[in-house]
Amino acid sequence: MVFKKITLIGTSTESFDDAADDAITRAEETLENVHWVEVDELGVEVASADDREYQAEVTVAFRLEE
Amino acid sequence: MVFKKITLIGTSTESFDDAADDAITRAEETLENVHWVEVDELGVEVASADDREYQAEVTVAFRLEE
Amino acid sequence: MVFKKITLIGTSTESFDDAADDAITRAEETLENVHWVEVDELGVEVASADDREYQAEVTVAFRLEE
Amino acid sequence: MVFKKITLIGTSTESFDDAADDAITRAEETLENVHWVEVDELGVEVASADDREYQAEVTVAFRLEE
Amino acid sequence: MVFKKITLIGTSTESFDDAADDAITRAEETLENVHWVEVDELGVEVASADDREYQAEVTVAFRLEE
Amino acid sequence: MVFKKITLIGTSTESFDDAADDAITRAEETLENVHWVEVDELGVEVASADDREYQAEVTVAFRLEE
Amino acid sequence: MVFKKITLIGTSTESFDDAADDAITRAEETLENVHWVEVDELGVEVASADDREYQAEVTVAFRLEE
Amino acid sequence: MVFKKITLIGTSTESFDDAADDAITRAEETLENVHWVEVDELGVEVASADDREYQAEVTVAFRLEE
Amino acid sequence: MVFKKITLIGTSTESFDDAADDAITRAEETLENVHWVEVDELGVEVASADDREYQAEVTVAFRLEE
Amino acid sequence: MVFKKITLIGTSTESFDDAADDAITRAEETLENVHWVEVDELGVEVASADDREYQAEVTVAFRLEE
Amino acid sequence: MVFKKITLIGTSTESFDDAADDAITRAEETLENVHWVEVDELGVEVASADDREYQAEVTVAFRLEE
Amino acid sequence: MVFKKITLIGTSTESFDDAADDAITRAEETLENVHWVEVDELGVEVASADDREYQAEVTVAFRLEE
Repeated sequence: MVFKKITLIGTSTESFDDAADDAITRAEETLENVHWVEVDELGVEVASADDREYQAEVTVAFRLEE
Repeated sequence: MVFKKITLIGTSTESFDDAADDAITRAEETLENVHWVEVDELGVEVASADDREYQAEVTVAFRLEE
Repeated sequence: MVFKKITLIGTSTESFDDAADDAITRAEETLENVHWVEVDELGVEVASADDREYQAEVTVAFRLEE
Repeated sequence: MVFKKITLIGTSTESFDDAADDAITRAEETLENVHWVEVDELGVEVASADDREYQAEVTVAFRLEE
Repeated sequence: MVFKKITLIGTSTESFDDAADDAITRAEETLENVHWVEVDELGVEVASADDREYQAEVTVAFRLEE
Repeated sequence: MVFKKITLIGTSTESFDDAADDAITRAEETLENVHWVEVDELGVEVASADDREYQAEVTVAFRLEE
Repeated sequence: MVFKKITLIGTSTESFDDAADDAITRAEETLENVHWVEVDELGVEVASADDREYQAEVTVAFRLEE
Repeated sequence: MVFKKITLIGTSTESFDDAADDAITRAEETLENVHWVEVDELGVEVASADDREYQAEVTVAFRLEE
Repeated sequence: MVFKKITLIGTSTESFDDAADDAITRAEETLENVHWVEVDELGVEVASADDREYQAEVTVAFRLEE
Repeated sequence: MVFKKITLIGTSTESFDDAADDAITRAEETLENVHWVEVDELGVEVASADDREYQAEVTVAFRLEE
Repeated sequence: MVFKKITLIGTSTESFDDAADDAITRAEETLENVHWVEVDELGVEVASADDREYQAEVTVAFRLEE
Repeated sequence: MVFKKITLIGTSTESFDDAADDAITRAEETLENVHWVEVDELGVEVASADDREYQAEVTVAFRLEE
């Protein structure tokens, strides 16, 4: 059994929780067998967004097909 | 005056805030004189949970009785 | 174009999101051209607060006037 | 010449060495030109395994085709 | 559901794997519900041991009774 | 032979050395077989103390009884 | 909006700047919407190269198609 | 003698060296007695720049007037 | 309630404690409401000093006026 | 009593344990009074080796003669 | 002008300051042109010492002869 | 096969690349079999230099004679 990890950054105009969920939802749409997620960093983009854009960088671990 | 630190991981099906609160509440039930809490890591368990399980690892500092 | 970074700690009795927003709002009141914000640490003050005081230490990057 | 790095977690019921080898073998089955491997973390899964499951998280560097 | 983490250092005159197993076995003798283990550091004591003493510092996560 | 590590914070109105000694003395009062101590962090509390309160966070390693 | 991050190592016989550019150019050839790049590590390969081979490990962030 | 440290991010369309110089020059225009500079991070902005914008985050240490 | 953090380096020809006190005293002369101080690094300057010059880099947290 | 630390990388075609032993044995051949060893990093060289070459970077602490 | 860095651990039965001085004095006895010293870690050996043995691991930077 | 690592700091009045080359050239003058070099830190000395002195701290790995 081998897992692979990839790093995604989700965004939300609402909250850090939503930003993390955004990335996890994206991961689950394209990957089978997502097992766990680690939050690497939280941040807020201000200049290039209309409002505050909450960002959550997460590492997603999923089991590879054998 | 001496403080001790212990590490707990709280869980919630709702949010990271609830997961941290879960660990702090547990700490306050069993420890006197909790002074402050540091969030070490945030994560989400997906595979072994029905739904997303938000997790917050926290370090709890409390004052030891003299 | 040169950016400067400063470190603030926002507080809230409600949530980590509010604590981060508290620091960002303060930054925007006194600084022009805030570009982005990085969350350095999350914590909870228990002993010196009536209730749990959520804290978010953030680094704010803003563009200096030329 | 450009290299790419990916992160895998190998598992074994025997040892950390086997867990690392498990991930490297998987990498070599699907990637040409694996050059080197860095061990990021070692761990043991206990609760969801029949016995102790040794885990080795490794970063695999391979040369991209030009 | 709340987990607690403690840090142990296992020792062995044979190998790092045995040193880690030594600590995990000790944890399982005194704690219910050990879930997972992270290896923090590996080292070798030479001066105060007859032979090389392999050491593995591990953090053990276990579920607290409710 | 298995060691366990715990984290204490000693305090002193005099110096960082006294703050570290404060934590080590406390550890030796309640634990047999303290082997070594690592200094994790030094700090000074100003606001909630009459004078400067020096603090030393230390990790204490002690041998468990077999 | 979700970003993904990948890690590349560019090489150059001239300079660290060229090594970083090498990796970024490669990223832009195969990925749409590269947003920013972080330099993780700089190094020089000596033994297996005719001359000094400058290396720059970079993490490339790009926006995923929706 | 007391030093203070501030964090700046210089930018350049040419190279990392120019980006660092950009920040140091700015520091020397507004601060007396700059003593030394540490490079914290290097990066490249791609999306919001016409071309690659090299960035160097530096910490500048200067001696405070007594 | 928002706190700000700044980084100072105090110096002393006597000891690390004096070097830290040097920086804290300076902070208290120019800032209201200093709350706590973290020691980031200790060092000794030898070449450019007549004798050993002990240095303590500290981060000072103070409450901003509302 | 003063200790010195040096950093070695041992190699083995068999295992990480052998790679660490390789470095420690080399240290003991040339240094008196080796006291302890810390494992800094584990890796595997694939491209320039016939087979997998396990590598263990270790820091060796030894007591200096007075 | 090239500097070299070496790592020493000084010891003292009195204080961390004395332990650091112990290592620096040793460095100056055997090395010309010591320029600066960084404190890496502080610790206390308890088990193998009659009393508490304070230890300071320092990195010593000195200028190489041309 | 055993490698050893040493840490050097090269300097240049021109650029970080030259500072790194300065240290590598010095290493190759006195050491056989230099294999690779890692850049640990970049900095600029301002106060004690006529002009900006770029510095590159590098770790040099070389193969020991058997």
